[in-house]
Amino acid sequence: MSLLVTGSIAIDTVKTPYGVSENCIGGSAVYFSMAASLFSPVRLLGVIGSDCPFDFGEVFAGRSVDLKGLEVREGSKTFRWAGTYHEDINERTTDKLELNVLAEEPPKLPDSFKDSKFIFLANTAPALQLQLLEQVDKASFVAADTMDCWIGGHRRDLESLLKKIDCLIINDEEARLLAGEFNLIKSAEKVLDMGPSVVIIKKGESGSMMCSGGERFILPAFPAAEVKDPTGAGDSFAGGLMGYIAKAGKTDFASLKQAIAYGTVAASFTIADFSVQGLATIKKDDIESRFETLRKLTSF
Amino acid sequence: MSLLVTGSIAIDTVKTPYGVSENCIGGSAVYFSMAASLFSPVRLLGVIGSDCPFDFGEVFAGRSVDLKGLEVREGSKTFRWAGTYHEDINERTTDKLELNVLAEEPPKLPDSFKDSKFIFLANTAPALQLQLLEQVDKASFVAADTMDCWIGGHRRDLESLLKKIDCLIINDEEARLLAGEFNLIKSAEKVLDMGPSVVIIKKGESGSMMCSGGERFILPAFPAAEVKDPTGAGDSFAGGLMGYIAKAGKTDFASLKQAIAYGTVAASFTIADFSVQGLATIKKDDIESRFETLRKLTSF
Repeated sequence: MSLLVTGSIAIDTVKTPYGVSENCIGGSAVYFSMAASLFSPVRLLGVIGSDCPFDFGEVFAGRSVDLKGLEVREGSKTFRWAGTYHEDINERTTDKLELNVLAEEPPKLPDSFKDSKFIFLANTAPALQLQLLEQVDKASFVAADTMDCWIGGHRRDLESLLKKIDCLIINDEEARLLAGEFNLIKSAEKVLDMGPSVVIIKKGESGSMMCSGGERFILPAFPAAEVKDPTGAGDSFAGGLMGYIAKAGKTDFASLKQAIAYGTVAASFTIADFSVQGLATIKKDDIESRFETLRKLTSF
Repeated sequence: MSLLVTGSIAIDTVKTPYGVSENCIGGSAVYFSMAASLFSPVRLLGVIGSDCPFDFGEVFAGRSVDLKGLEVREGSKTFRWAGTYHEDINERTTDKLELNVLAEEPPKLPDSFKDSKFIFLANTAPALQLQLLEQVDKASFVAADTMDCWIGGHRRDLESLLKKIDCLIINDEEARLLAGEFNLIKSAEKVLDMGPSVVIIKKGESGSMMCSGGERFILPAFPAAEVKDPTGAGDSFAGGLMGYIAKAGKTDFASLKQAIAYGTVAASFTIADFSVQGLATIKKDDIESRFETLRKLTSF
């Protein structure tokens, strides 16, 4: 079924202990689409400036990513991010952040995207996430991400958003901040009380957990001996997850568990190389094969 | 089959955000025995001073723990530890450490313990761990724990020990320190090169992983909404693990995976209450029931 993502498209410069990747493609909507399109066609809504050097037809060559919602805004500049990952690859410093076109009006949803059934609202101001949702006819399953600055500074908007989505996908620190509670299980339960019927907490190299209606699921990350660049891991996780359920057309707990495993696998390919190279060079078979490995690695 | 543990017996004072437990029973051998005896009879080798206030017959009432190796040394003082856990319950400060009798001669292995087949050497000086091993006739499977001060300061002894044991059970920071490598998978492979055929890395609330002969297993921790006192979690994990394999009499990879799951379950009961209360009040059925829950929580 139709899957829509709205999020950022970025020109990234990333330094890690394994090298430097300058002016490479990045952004939540890009990582999400690259992962989700391994499962299901994706509709991408995003905006770039006229300075953007990437050929998106080429970036998504061989994948079904509908770019009708990609706006190239004349005279504006593309969002840029630069960051450095340290020896402890879980720690990163932001070296530069230029919102540019992301600080302007959001892109307009094409009429042909309005019937989208599965929607992922990548991290941005919750007011913008709400505004996008209002333009969609009737979605089956809406998932959103958020981050510390919105939890702290735009609490009321975020609370309104939480009442209108089905699933919140956030990291552990965000969950603790949102719930005002250190214990992650209790945090998840508190977030469920705020509206969504499913909460999925990403814990980086410690994996992820899901809580929904009294049921729980926990899954380790795929054990990676090579982590070159963790950028986009969370958005690839969401992409694999949403791509799988859009294809399955089901959001029962058992399907969501499988979706999290597929998200975990997608993220594991992302971090093995810089930018989207780890995801761009694989096929669905690679995903299926690693999915089976993950099952074997975790079953007893 | 016969299971021997040698480790500390302590008088602990523990502060956590949930309360204080003064002068309670603790120590690696105690937590280990409490967990392992849910599966298999345990032989305990340890030493206390004549000041020790605990009645060990009562502590282990209803469990098969052979106390012939418990030496009460006249005129000596029992090992004491005091610590505080912070709001982030993964962080702790040691408030007081009095080695006392642990700085004296180790206890003597009773003749009737010399035919022990499964052995756990809890954390202590590697020279003492080696000395104990030399007194045992022919063990089937020897596992050991160690910690940062031995990795840094007694490297040669530790390297000798690693050549004589089958399994090293350590935490993530210790694995990184021992291997001189941040990535945990690579760390595990390097530790395997040092001698043991199995390495098990404990990652606290992130669970554990095992590497052996090219095979890997990863398991999350049991998701706990109530963590009152994490003291002894690692030793209970080792106790559940070794107790299970001593009972099964098998150490193939599939059995070790099950053993890690039982260790995880044992640790989850430990952290739910102060001192050994969480383990002392349960029966084998509680373990089996939570083992099935853990399987359900992690399978997809």
